[in-house]
Amino acid sequence: MSEQTAILLVEDNPYDAELTIRALKAHRLLNNIVHVTDGQEALDYLFGTGLWKDGNTRSRPKVVLLDLKMPRVDGVEVLRRIRSDPHTKFLPVVVLTSSREERDLIESYKLGANSYIVKPVDFDQFSEAVRSLGLYWLLLNEAPSAELNHDNGIKSP
Amino acid sequence: MSEQTAILLVEDNPYDAELTIRALKAHRLLNNIVHVTDGQEALDYLFGTGLWKDGNTRSRPKVVLLDLKMPRVDGVEVLRRIRSDPHTKFLPVVVLTSSREERDLIESYKLGANSYIVKPVDFDQFSEAVRSLGLYWLLLNEAPSAELNHDNGIKSP
Repeated sequence: MSEQTAILLVEDNPYDAELTIRALKAHRLLNNIVHVTDGQEALDYLFGTGLWKDGNTRSRPKVVLLDLKMPRVDGVEVLRRIRSDPHTKFLPVVVLTSSREERDLIESYKLGANSYIVKPVDFDQFSEAVRSLGLYWLLLNEAPSAELNHDNGIKSP
Repeated sequence: MSEQTAILLVEDNPYDAELTIRALKAHRLLNNIVHVTDGQEALDYLFGTGLWKDGNTRSRPKVVLLDLKMPRVDGVEVLRRIRSDPHTKFLPVVVLTSSREERDLIESYKLGANSYIVKPVDFDQFSEAVRSLGLYWLLLNEAPSAELNHDNGIKSP
């Protein structure tokens, strides 16, 4: 997976973030994960603004794991912005949330989420879910190449 | 998974279909798979028309595995029809194809494919890929409920 950021984890809950990162590490899937703690930082990372305006974002992640309920900018708004921008329009986004509400599910798919996963409460099941989704989106799924996403455009604000 | 059709496999190549079904069986994921051999039959199954007009389609599948190059109606057109109909708009569709062409990849995502997988040529890798995608879409992913897709509407033509 070279130097590409494999996973952008957008998660404000420190416990859930820790669990996710541990599970990825345990399953040797921890390639260049970037963890941001709210929607605004996710947007800054993806579009090279704010804290990320100095070009630290080397390339598009292979997948975004997106929590929904977050401070400042929530996951729904992040998803809307990702799908509205030609640079990130086809970026795989997996909603990873505690919400089982149909409203959140429908809204996520309407806005173009590729997948919606309810975080298992049980630790082992959570770990297994993260392994499964990591394998699937990092190794199996094909996303349009960075070039076709006009990758170069995002590095300078 | 009760009586719901878990997987609708749309695949005209008998060898690839056989491999897929064997892999699902080997990994105990063969719950109510329906195999159709071209795009027209896929549409008939999903919308209760043609050969399927007598209400044999009990419910929406949990995932559609969709080949692209097929006689009569190709996979791209099937995907377009699935996304255009409110009954099937949010149905998870995984393109499973031999094509590595960026044009097919982009077109599939543009039309709303949830995922795009290039069939591995190696038998073991193919089997592992099918296992991984079966587990992911049958057990992990949450799709909107049949009710919210107005499931009842499809059974009579």
